[in-house]
Amino acid sequence: MHSPPLSPQLLNSLIPEENTRCQHGLYFQDGERRVDYVLTYHIKKPSSSRSNRHSYCFTDNAFTRTLRRGTARLGRPPPPQPRGDLEVAPHDHSMDYHEDDKRFRREEFEGNLTDMGLELEKDEDTKTPGVGFVKIHAPWHVLCREAEFMKLKMPTKKVYEVKQSSGVGAKISTLVSKATEPLHPNVEENRVHNVKHLSYAFSREKQHLLLGNGVYTAAYPLHDVSRNLSILLCCSTYRKYFGEKIGLYFAWLGLYTQMLIPASLVGVIVFLYGCATVDDNIPSMEICHPKNNITMCPLCDKACSYWKLMEACGTARASHLFDNPATVFFSIFMALWAAMFMEHWKRRQMRLNYEWDLTGFEEEEVSDHPRAEYEFRVMQKSLKKEHKTQKVPTEKEKLTCRDRFPAYMTNIVMMLLMIGVTFAIVFGVILYRISTNAALHLSNNPTTRSNVRLTVKTTAAIINLVVILILDEVYGAVARWLTVLEVPKTDKSFEERLIFKTFILKFVNAFTPIIYIAFFRGRLVGRPGSYLYVFESYRMEECAHGGCLMELCIQLSITMLGKQLIQNNLFEIGIPKLKKLIRYIKSKRRSFQEEEREKKLQRYETDHFLEPFAGLTPEYMEMIIQFGFVTLFVASFPLAPLFALLNNIIEIRLDAKKFVAELRRPVAARAKDIGIWYNLLRGVAKVAVIINAFVISFTSDFIPRLVYQYMYSPDGSMHGFVDHTLSYFNVSDFQHGKEPMEPLHLGYPVDMCRYKDYREPPWSNTPYVISKEFWAVLAARLAFVIVFQNVVMLMSDIVDWLIPDIPKDISLQIHKEKILMVELFMKEEQGKRQFIDSMTPGGGKENSNKHAPIARSRSIPHTHSHTHANNF
Amino acid sequence: MHSPPLSPQLLNSLIPEENTRCQHGLYFQDGERRVDYVLTYHIKKPSSSRSNRHSYCFTDNAFTRTLRRGTARLGRPPPPQPRGDLEVAPHDHSMDYHEDDKRFRREEFEGNLTDMGLELEKDEDTKTPGVGFVKIHAPWHVLCREAEFMKLKMPTKKVYEVKQSSGVGAKISTLVSKATEPLHPNVEENRVHNVKHLSYAFSREKQHLLLGNGVYTAAYPLHDVSRNLSILLCCSTYRKYFGEKIGLYFAWLGLYTQMLIPASLVGVIVFLYGCATVDDNIPSMEICHPKNNITMCPLCDKACSYWKLMEACGTARASHLFDNPATVFFSIFMALWAAMFMEHWKRRQMRLNYEWDLTGFEEEEVSDHPRAEYEFRVMQKSLKKEHKTQKVPTEKEKLTCRDRFPAYMTNIVMMLLMIGVTFAIVFGVILYRISTNAALHLSNNPTTRSNVRLTVKTTAAIINLVVILILDEVYGAVARWLTVLEVPKTDKSFEERLIFKTFILKFVNAFTPIIYIAFFRGRLVGRPGSYLYVFESYRMEECAHGGCLMELCIQLSITMLGKQLIQNNLFEIGIPKLKKLIRYIKSKRRSFQEEEREKKLQRYETDHFLEPFAGLTPEYMEMIIQFGFVTLFVASFPLAPLFALLNNIIEIRLDAKKFVAELRRPVAARAKDIGIWYNLLRGVAKVAVIINAFVISFTSDFIPRLVYQYMYSPDGSMHGFVDHTLSYFNVSDFQHGKEPMEPLHLGYPVDMCRYKDYREPPWSNTPYVISKEFWAVLAARLAFVIVFQNVVMLMSDIVDWLIPDIPKDISLQIHKEKILMVELFMKEEQGKRQFIDSMTPGGGKENSNKHAPIARSRSIPHTHSHTHANNF
Repeated sequence: MHSPPLSPQLLNSLIPEENTRCQHGLYFQDGERRVDYVLTYHIKKPSSSRSNRHSYCFTDNAFTRTLRRGTARLGRPPPPQPRGDLEVAPHDHSMDYHEDDKRFRREEFEGNLTDMGLELEKDEDTKTPGVGFVKIHAPWHVLCREAEFMKLKMPTKKVYEVKQSSGVGAKISTLVSKATEPLHPNVEENRVHNVKHLSYAFSREKQHLLLGNGVYTAAYPLHDVSRNLSILLCCSTYRKYFGEKIGLYFAWLGLYTQMLIPASLVGVIVFLYGCATVDDNIPSMEICHPKNNITMCPLCDKACSYWKLMEACGTARASHLFDNPATVFFSIFMALWAAMFMEHWKRRQMRLNYEWDLTGFEEEEVSDHPRAEYEFRVMQKSLKKEHKTQKVPTEKEKLTCRDRFPAYMTNIVMMLLMIGVTFAIVFGVILYRISTNAALHLSNNPTTRSNVRLTVKTTAAIINLVVILILDEVYGAVARWLTVLEVPKTDKSFEERLIFKTFILKFVNAFTPIIYIAFFRGRLVGRPGSYLYVFESYRMEECAHGGCLMELCIQLSITMLGKQLIQNNLFEIGIPKLKKLIRYIKSKRRSFQEEEREKKLQRYETDHFLEPFAGLTPEYMEMIIQFGFVTLFVASFPLAPLFALLNNIIEIRLDAKKFVAELRRPVAARAKDIGIWYNLLRGVAKVAVIINAFVISFTSDFIPRLVYQYMYSPDGSMHGFVDHTLSYFNVSDFQHGKEPMEPLHLGYPVDMCRYKDYREPPWSNTPYVISKEFWAVLAARLAFVIVFQNVVMLMSDIVDWLIPDIPKDISLQIHKEKILMVELFMKEEQGKRQFIDSMTPGGGKENSNKHAPIARSRSIPHTHSHTHANNF
Repeated sequence: MHSPPLSPQLLNSLIPEENTRCQHGLYFQDGERRVDYVLTYHIKKPSSSRSNRHSYCFTDNAFTRTLRRGTARLGRPPPPQPRGDLEVAPHDHSMDYHEDDKRFRREEFEGNLTDMGLELEKDEDTKTPGVGFVKIHAPWHVLCREAEFMKLKMPTKKVYEVKQSSGVGAKISTLVSKATEPLHPNVEENRVHNVKHLSYAFSREKQHLLLGNGVYTAAYPLHDVSRNLSILLCCSTYRKYFGEKIGLYFAWLGLYTQMLIPASLVGVIVFLYGCATVDDNIPSMEICHPKNNITMCPLCDKACSYWKLMEACGTARASHLFDNPATVFFSIFMALWAAMFMEHWKRRQMRLNYEWDLTGFEEEEVSDHPRAEYEFRVMQKSLKKEHKTQKVPTEKEKLTCRDRFPAYMTNIVMMLLMIGVTFAIVFGVILYRISTNAALHLSNNPTTRSNVRLTVKTTAAIINLVVILILDEVYGAVARWLTVLEVPKTDKSFEERLIFKTFILKFVNAFTPIIYIAFFRGRLVGRPGSYLYVFESYRMEECAHGGCLMELCIQLSITMLGKQLIQNNLFEIGIPKLKKLIRYIKSKRRSFQEEEREKKLQRYETDHFLEPFAGLTPEYMEMIIQFGFVTLFVASFPLAPLFALLNNIIEIRLDAKKFVAELRRPVAARAKDIGIWYNLLRGVAKVAVIINAFVISFTSDFIPRLVYQYMYSPDGSMHGFVDHTLSYFNVSDFQHGKEPMEPLHLGYPVDMCRYKDYREPPWSNTPYVISKEFWAVLAARLAFVIVFQNVVMLMSDIVDWLIPDIPKDISLQIHKEKILMVELFMKEEQGKRQFIDSMTPGGGKENSNKHAPIARSRSIPHTHSHTHANNF
């Protein structure tokens, strides 16, 4: 969070809050018209002679002419060219044509903007050399027009009172919201807002034109210095400043964080319950009791020797912290919590839609415009076809499944490959663990052993973490590349496909090692005397006595904490800061201007140095992966919600600061909902139910304990459970070469050793085959999964059904508003009819019988907008 | 379907299609203004002197005055009084006041209607004595106003071409739709429709007033004779004639029936596969082979004797028809089919919304009006409070949970009681079967035995069916009574609560016997020598060898066919016909008019004799129960879709005929969707997945066969499966008094007999306890349930995700329309700006900079409606 030690004064000039002189750059030269939007483009340095000669004069060469006609004929912008060549000055002759062409196209584009009613101001003579700025102002009538097309709601003269709910319930909720105030950016309260501030109407609608044009290097609205501070201080104007889309993100994050409070409370209680009951836990008492001196079979062939069960005392006690009946309750609780969260979010979204007057707004119109890449591909295709058939195609071409088939195949293959890479890496880490463990068993010193075992576990977890972090970045790039290959038609489709792919890859990446530990580790290990091996020399890993739950917990906490600390906070905050610094240094090195001039940078120049806003995808992705940690394996790690909560409290602050100070102001975008993220959340919540069911029934010892208690225990207590889970092995049954090298390691000869499994004893007719108890426990486990899954799903559905999607007060208010509107119009019409009746006495009724329409209420809204505008 | 032999001429006069003279009654006396709506009320016969004296003159007594003031003060209609007292003439003095009061209120109400712009015509002098008619006409300007409040879309001058999809796919779909044409009432094709026909705007909005008023006896729009015929012939105008709500029902029924075609095709193929492979089925071959002469243990104590497995040959072969691997495939198919159906319905609904111009329509405004019963209760409550506290309450009262608590408790208790009754009756039928079976075993004749066994099964199924039919009617009434007790606030809430309760009760009623057979029968039977008994004398039922699947199938087919034939067709068609007849006869008996006059009945009089429309609930309920039969136990009865299809083809015709000819024309209601029915369908589809998983894994022998094949079979084939499923019983282990009375029944002494169960043999250490195989099979069954459920749910989700909710062409058209609209408005605005610019040269831009709004496009739609109306 520290800025590097490089001319702090200069840097300060870039931080908006502290440079009040930049205020000037917010308006046109006349100081009246506000700069609503800025376009930047590259201009050649004065030292470069050719392009300067042509500046502002139209070079009438053949190329641009063709292009002009082409553009006009196709009725769309020409194919895009790579952007971001801001710093690279063109040098050869062909680039010159290019430059002229760009200038021509800029002029045409700017002409179109003027035709639309916008007002422009050019500024090529700034303190930032090589960059030209076009400042755009959208006058009132343009805003009105666009607002009407977007069906923005406007306030009428009619005002009505919104009754606040009263009573104890309301007071409690006020208290709660006051207590949690710092956690959620409470979206603005006053609902009657002014059309005046809706400057995004213009920019959003035509954004696809801008981006597809390729002749501008950047396009952004300006940061509003007077507001920046207030955002950081009171965080109540996210929506007004950034638009609905980012407003929704902060609202969502706020609700999520708020909802994490009860979850982490219950989680802590469950953990404390585990701590409190650790001494009353009969199985771990039995393991730790010196009298029950059970001799265990060696854990590997030859190198290992017999050991005492008491050695596992520590892990058994630790396991109880996460493996107790409260965990079952907690995972049911968290499944319902997730359902509640989804429902609450639906309600919150509805409320925001109402408060932000989005109820009539329909989404698709904006993003249905084809992307430039898509248009380009379609053009290529039709040109090819034209070339083949020698005639102009009549119908408009589009990309069919056949055109896209190679891309789809690449997608599938690459996705599988990437998932395969993840699996391979996880397997590699497993091998690392196995081989170190094997080497370990050859050592004689018991303290080294136990120390090294812990070391190996921890290093393996850290290696996993590092791999996850690196692969996350790689996968992000791969997903983008794959989505570009697909050439989706619209921006929305592009975003959704990208998000979906990124989500799949990152999710697999984050959870594969965890799933391995939860469900595969220690399952296929064989039995003493015939252990299973990988690569014929490494034995499959086994969990410590007491189940794999504790190791799962360790892995989870390291991954989660590590990801949050390193990825979210370090990467997210550090890297934009670094980039900004680099951008600034580069620009400075090129210009060799003195510091004084830098300080007088206009607002639009300051913002130019900021990192462009890259979308909300990384923010949401981070949160949804965290949501996965909070819900998926919560049965084994009840503290996850607490960690998430602590992270998010910081996260909200950092995100807000980043958006205000580190990034260019994003183009405000309207949105009614959080789109595909909601579906992904739902998916995670659904998967969580199944995974928790399996964790409880297969990873923990919950079901074996229950089965023992109700089917086998002589007195209905847990006494004898440990003995029941251990099978017998006759030492004489060791195959030749597999018996331990040091049979007298414990100090006495061993005839019969025990191992943890449900197998027939040596004296049965079928020694060492899986016993009836195994099948009974397996059946119980599976039955538990079915019952758990269906009960939790049913309860979630009931929660879904009980909580109405639209809050009661909102639906009442909407209803009230409608009635008021109808009354208003009715009154007006009655007045008119009376007027007509008085004009033509007795003629009103006869007139209406002849189906003559009466001129009526259409004009009312117009009148209002009139008066409203005049009042303004 | 035959009309009873009673003056067929007279009856004919009531059937609308054939009485063209009724056409006259469709208009006011002037023959120009159309009768949009009819109210009827009771008038005293001329013979009754008192009321006649007061007719059309206002009796100014204290009571009516108070009431007038009260009504005015409260701003709502007075509490409702019981309706339907049409046939009962008042006789005492107090009723006279009542009559006057009613007349006064009618006049007040009619005055209000006239104030609203409606035109009325009274007709008390009809051929139907004792009934007065108020005919209502809604003139054009009222329709326009209401249409605007309802945000009806209207056609603009702008017309654009809707491109039809071309290619092979479209051709195939055309072919398919042509082939299935008679099955679905294809909703109208032409989408530009006329505001003129929207006469429901008035009636629907104010319907709650009408119904709450209590002084009219009936309220209905008229049947349109000229259209009736065309509906029955071409079935393309459901929506226009009945409104969107009924149109949606027919569209839904059409889609459902259409979707049943592939389902029943696959079902028939699966059934045929079963038939074709019945001779290759190794287990049934083994059972039927004379060589495998396995001696089975007696099926009951004492009375029964040993029997040969060969006796079960027939049932084993029959079982194979429904218990083969194809069934598993079919139930997966049907689960996906259900998901597809839901998705297709969403799409169809979306398409209809677009075609019917409902996209902007919002539902709630209509049904948010409190019901009269609710208002009455609230008034009661506030009066009580007033009485207690001696002051007028300031805030408007509402019913809290506490007020409703007794009703809720009654609801819960009654629902549980009703479900208990269902269970008790099912248990009674079981006892009937058990006792007859027990009696049967005492008989000696084997032919009697097998005959009587079939008889018992069939009679039990028929008893079940009759009980279901009777309870269905009872439950319908109980659910309505319970919902009235609850006093729901709005009509919508009333309807939803009623539907939910009815659904629960009817569903439990229909499926309890089936669920018993599928999952409980033959589970807890004990073993030879220690059979379980109920009431100490009746043994628990066992399924025939080969699983309960066949019995399940018999029960299903009898219930389903019986329900459909009796309930749907007989009740639905027969009873309205009967009621109409009774109504007519009664009226005739009272009036003693000659036949000739009857023939000249006006249209509004004819319709008065029809049964009032009772809502779509029975139609939907019938279909959703059928949907349950089609999906829930489809694993055991692959022919269910075929039966459903055959039923529905008749059903659509009968429903349409009923709506047109047997019922009063329903008030057209707007609806965007089918409401709660969709949720119930979803619920049934979800439950179906789980139930099918359990049927396959627990009721059928699929899993035991699979387990045998992969775990126990020596050669991987099914040979020896029958032997493997039979446990051994040593005859000497019979307790005293339980051994069969005729041990030599088979002709030879028996040492060891077999029985179908997984238990340890007599020679093991723990004889007759549940064996390892049992647990292994149980684990496999449970694992199958988990896998099946999750795989099918995942696949359903994928289907849900792959099929977009909005059809591609519809979303494209909506987008296109929006663009066209924007273009139209833009052009108009440009024209205006140019005009302004030409008026004030160079002043346009400066003007707009000063935020002056330009008068614009609001007037366009109005202009259009103008021209449109004139064109009409």
